[in-house]
Amino acid sequence: MSVDLQHFFETYRPSVDQALTDRVSTLKTPDTLKAAMLYSLEAGGKRVRPLLALAVLQCYRPVEEEDLPAASAVELIHTYSLVHDDLPSMDDDDWRRGQPTNHRKFGEATAILAGDALQTTAFTWVAEAGRPASAEARLQLVQELAGASGGEGMVGGQMADLEGEKQALNLKELEYIHHHKTGALLTYAVVSGSLIAEAPNTDVENWRAFGRELGLVFQIKDDILDVEGSLEEMGKSSGSDESKEKSTYPKLLTLEGAKEKLTYHIEEAEKLLGLMTVDTSLLVSFLHYIGQRNH
Amino acid sequence: MSVDLQHFFETYRPSVDQALTDRVSTLKTPDTLKAAMLYSLEAGGKRVRPLLALAVLQCYRPVEEEDLPAASAVELIHTYSLVHDDLPSMDDDDWRRGQPTNHRKFGEATAILAGDALQTTAFTWVAEAGRPASAEARLQLVQELAGASGGEGMVGGQMADLEGEKQALNLKELEYIHHHKTGALLTYAVVSGSLIAEAPNTDVENWRAFGRELGLVFQIKDDILDVEGSLEEMGKSSGSDESKEKSTYPKLLTLEGAKEKLTYHIEEAEKLLGLMTVDTSLLVSFLHYIGQRNH
Repeated sequence: MSVDLQHFFETYRPSVDQALTDRVSTLKTPDTLKAAMLYSLEAGGKRVRPLLALAVLQCYRPVEEEDLPAASAVELIHTYSLVHDDLPSMDDDDWRRGQPTNHRKFGEATAILAGDALQTTAFTWVAEAGRPASAEARLQLVQELAGASGGEGMVGGQMADLEGEKQALNLKELEYIHHHKTGALLTYAVVSGSLIAEAPNTDVENWRAFGRELGLVFQIKDDILDVEGSLEEMGKSSGSDESKEKSTYPKLLTLEGAKEKLTYHIEEAEKLLGLMTVDTSLLVSFLHYIGQRNH
Repeated sequence: MSVDLQHFFETYRPSVDQALTDRVSTLKTPDTLKAAMLYSLEAGGKRVRPLLALAVLQCYRPVEEEDLPAASAVELIHTYSLVHDDLPSMDDDDWRRGQPTNHRKFGEATAILAGDALQTTAFTWVAEAGRPASAEARLQLVQELAGASGGEGMVGGQMADLEGEKQALNLKELEYIHHHKTGALLTYAVVSGSLIAEAPNTDVENWRAFGRELGLVFQIKDDILDVEGSLEEMGKSSGSDESKEKSTYPKLLTLEGAKEKLTYHIEEAEKLLGLMTVDTSLLVSFLHYIGQRNH
């Protein structure tokens, strides 16, 4: 990881953590519901999505305290999706990030409601007065977030993933799932940073294309790690996708082919960064961090 | 029901139905997800919430086609809440409105995802370009909808209701549940009509107070019907709340006391209607329709 990126993470990850905890703690909700929301939010995620948003933002101007709610809202959506995906009727997972899953800790009913409320809260955070300053920009954030996370985005991808689990997929079907299930929200995170910055429209559209490439880099690397990773490195059984007969890039393309595809999308993403009107060196580092991570 | 209100329902209920079906049908989602979303949306709800929004709106100006998405979005939230509430880990209901519940028809995983996507879609509809015309007003709709439906509103009420099922509640606790579980969304519906109309602020705040009274009228009447209603009239076993040892207004206040309280809140609501800057006779009829319904 580059020194600049490491410094950036060390500065802003605690800020994101703090914003999430402080703002959810002060919601006026029944105690059990709040505890369940905080439990999964504070389970130690890497905050990749809010940090992506802030990294893009700081290409345009220094990050300020007031930027944190809008930039962190995407983590509420990501967290709600994990809580619901872990449920017995979905992936039926008992553990996540080294602790019992939300429904194992609080029961299914509370986990469902905590997920529901996390989703709603995300829309409060992007819509409320603050940053971005203009109502039009905040409204666009709401629309982009809804598009990325609903039936035409993340939830649609999760549905396709559930239906695809029991069958062999071709590359087009696999990419549909990834573009929706994980790609849409990563792309939103990138785009949201440019919208919070009120960046020029041409940049926003280039960030959208970059986000799409980054999403593929993230997922292809994930699949490669799943084949290569060890139990210690991943914190879950490696080869777990394989055991579920799930379609992956290495399966469809061979491991070598998946690595070539990873390199291709990293290069495409770099080209897009070169088109921006601002210095994007931090995002070059972020891209390589995601493409070369070992966990 | 007054002739005017009957005419209003006959005119606009089909418009709301159409808007819901048309707009969800054209979403780009996996087929199963869309089918599950439409299944519960088209299950024959009375559309009380969208019709409340449109009734308030038409106090200010004639309703137009472009008003329907923002006014109907609340029905997506209401429907998602029913789909999730019916799940085995929540109320565990097999039937709703004479047909199998969503999870009985599509399975639990799809029902959870359909509920999730219905919630998200509601935010798309209130945020998108159209009515109300100003970005500020649409942003306020987003904020109001999120406030009414999340942990500080409907979901908080559902959580408190689940926790309260096994114990005797006092009147204050019962009102907390009702103000949140059902009242918040009814109030939102009323307020949203005034925001779509871009009504004067003093009116908006009076509509909010009216919505709160209307929510209580709705719930007290519901509890009274549950005691008095017959199997044929309710479409579910009457006395079902009692069998679950659930706290209700008649239990806490006696049936006579609950009826007095109903009359009191109808009168309070009427007083608030008298304060508006516009003719509210249609809402007087709507209020009495809700307070005197027999199903």
